Amino acid sequence: MQRDLADRLIDADTLARLTELADLDPLLVVDDFTEPAAAAALREAEVIVSSWGCPPLDEAVLAAAPQLRAVIHAAGSVKHHITDACWQRGLQVTSAAWANALPVAEYTVAAVLFANKQLFRIREDYRARRAAHDWQSAYADTGNYRRTVGVIGASRIGRRVIELLRPHDLDLLLHDPYVTADEAEALGTRAVGLDELCAAADVVSVHAPELAETHHLIDARRLALMRDGATLINTSRGSLIDQEALLAELLPGRLSAVLDVTVPEVLPADSPLYELPNVVLTPHVAGSLGGELHRMAAAAADELARYAAGRPFAHPVLPQEISTSA
Amino acid sequence: MQRDLADRLIDADTLARLTELADLDPLLVVDDFTEPAAAAALREAEVIVSSWGCPPLDEAVLAAAPQLRAVIHAAGSVKHHITDACWQRGLQVTSAAWANALPVAEYTVAAVLFANKQLFRIREDYRARRAAHDWQSAYADTGNYRRTVGVIGASRIGRRVIELLRPHDLDLLLHDPYVTADEAEALGTRAVGLDELCAAADVVSVHAPELAETHHLIDARRLALMRDGATLINTSRGSLIDQEALLAELLPGRLSAVLDVTVPEVLPADSPLYELPNVVLTPHVAGSLGGELHRMAAAAADELARYAAGRPFAHPVLPQEISTSA
Repeated sequence: MQRDLADRLIDADTLARLTELADLDPLLVVDDFTEPAAAAALREAEVIVSSWGCPPLDEAVLAAAPQLRAVIHAAGSVKHHITDACWQRGLQVTSAAWANALPVAEYTVAAVLFANKQLFRIREDYRARRAAHDWQSAYADTGNYRRTVGVIGASRIGRRVIELLRPHDLDLLLHDPYVTADEAEALGTRAVGLDELCAAADVVSVHAPELAETHHLIDARRLALMRDGATLINTSRGSLIDQEALLAELLPGRLSAVLDVTVPEVLPADSPLYELPNVVLTPHVAGSLGGELHRMAAAAADELARYAAGRPFAHPVLPQEISTSA
Repeated sequence: MQRDLADRLIDADTLARLTELADLDPLLVVDDFTEPAAAAALREAEVIVSSWGCPPLDEAVLAAAPQLRAVIHAAGSVKHHITDACWQRGLQVTSAAWANALPVAEYTVAAVLFANKQLFRIREDYRARRAAHDWQSAYADTGNYRRTVGVIGASRIGRRVIELLRPHDLDLLLHDPYVTADEAEALGTRAVGLDELCAAADVVSVHAPELAETHHLIDARRLALMRDGATLINTSRGSLIDQEALLAELLPGRLSAVLDVTVPEVLPADSPLYELPNVVLTPHVAGSLGGELHRMAAAAADELARYAAGRPFAHPVLPQEISTSA
C-alpha cells in the first residue's frame, strides 16, 4: 500500500491484533516489491495485507512469492492489483468492499434526505434574502414524503442505501440488470427499466460499477427524461455520466446534482460545477475517509483471524465477480 | 388554521377521506371563530380539525361550541390553541406531533452524517482550492466510524433520531431528565449528564422542548466543554442555546453548527451566522415542509376515522404532557 497510508489505516488496536495473529513486521510497508526488504519479505510471505496503492500482483511478483496463499485487501476494489495470474495461482482473496460501502451509502442517504427537502437550495436562498419569507409557499413541492428515489445498481452500496432509506416514506425504484423483480421486491424496491427510473424519480442515485457497458449510462437522453427539479447523485465514477450533458441541465437550473466524482477527478478551476447553487461538489471523499479507514483495517484483521483459524474468508472476492462489480 | 394553509395541507385523497368520514364543508377554513360563517359552524361542530394558526380555544370559543367533543390537530404542538378550558371541558385532543417529528429527525440525521464527515467544510475547501489535495491527511480526524453523537431530549424527535442513527457505527449518548439508564440502554444509547454529553460528543443535537427550565440549556460553560471541531445541531428552538456564546465559539472556527432555529427567528441581515463557513443555517424548515404537510393531514384523517368508529385516538394529547413537551 502507499507508504504513508499504513499509519492512518491501522489504529493501535488493530495493529496489536495483526501482530498477535501473524509474524508481521509493522515497520515494513511496501509499495514496490522489487526493493530488497520487500523482496525478502515476499519470499517468506503467506499472506499480503494490501490497501490503496498496492502494485499489481503480476506473474513476476507471484514468482517471487512462493509461499503466498492469500491477499487480504483493506480497501474496496481489488481490480488494480489482483491479476489473472492471482486467480490462476489459486490465491484466496478478500476485500473490505463491504466496509468501504458503508460511508458511501451514508453520504448518499444524507444527500437524498437533503435533496428531497431542497435544503441546500433553501440555505442559499435564506442567505440571499436575510428576511422573513413564506418558505411553505416557496417550497410547496418538496420534502421526504411519498417522493421517489431511484437507485441504479444493487451493488453493496446500492443495497445499503436501500436499507437505510427503507424506514422513510419514500418510494424506492431499483434498476439493476442482474436483479429480478422478486429480488427487488424483497429489498423493498420495485425493479424498473433505467428510462422509467430516470423519468419517475425525484432523486436518482448512481451505484453501478465503472465498466465499458456503463460508460455514459446517464446520457443526454436519460437526463432529459428526468423530472424538472430532480437531483442526480453520483458517488460511483464520473465516467457513468455524460458530464457535458449534465452541465447543460444544471446551468439553467432544471436539475440539481450532488457529485462526489467527476471527469477529470479534479475539475479545472474554471468549471461551473464549483459555483452553481444547485450543485454540491465534493472531491471523491464519500468512501472511507479519516477515521473510517480504521474500519477497513479492522475488517482485514477479522479476515486474517479467520485465515489463521483455517476458516474461509467472510467476504471472499471471486474471479467471476470482477467483470460485473466495481 | 391559516386560511391559505388548507389547500397545501390537505391533498385530494385526504380531503376525500375527510368528507366521507364527516359532515364537512371543505370551503370553510376558519382563522377567526367570531366571523358569522365560523360561528354558525362552531354551533354545530362536534370535531375541530386544526393546524398552524388556529386561534386559542378559550372559554368564549368553547361556550359558542356546545357540541364540541374533540380537537384533531394536523400539526405538532397544541400549546397555542388548547387552553385549560379545553381540558376542563373534557375535550379529546390528538395531534400529528409524531408525523411532524419525522422530517425533523430526517434533517438531523442527514446533518449528523454530513457533520461527522465534515462534508460541508470539505465542499467549501474544494471550492476554494480547485486543485488536487491530500484530503485523507487534511481530514484525518473525520468520518462516521466510532464517533460519539449526543442527543439531548428523548422527545419523539430525539427517539426517532436515535432509531435512525442506530444502524451506524456511532456511540449514542442521551441526556433526558425523565429517562432512566435502563430506558436509555433499551433505546441503544447510554444515559449521561448534560455536561458529560457536551464534553464527549463529536456532534451534539438538541431535541428538548422550549420551557423555562430549558432556556439557554446550552450556555457558554457547556459550549466550552464541547470538543474542538465538534458540531452543534439545533432543530428545536433558538432559546435553548445562548446564541451570543455560540457565536463566540463559531467565529474562531472552534465549533461548527447546523441551525434551523435562531433568536430572533429571522436573523438580522448582518448576522455572521449567514456567512460563516462552519455554519449551516436554514430558516426553520426542518419540520413539515411542502409535501410533508400531507402526512399531517393524513394523520388527522386517520384519527377522525378512529373517532367516527368510536375508538380512542392513536395519538392522544394528555394535559399532563403539556408542561414537559414541545
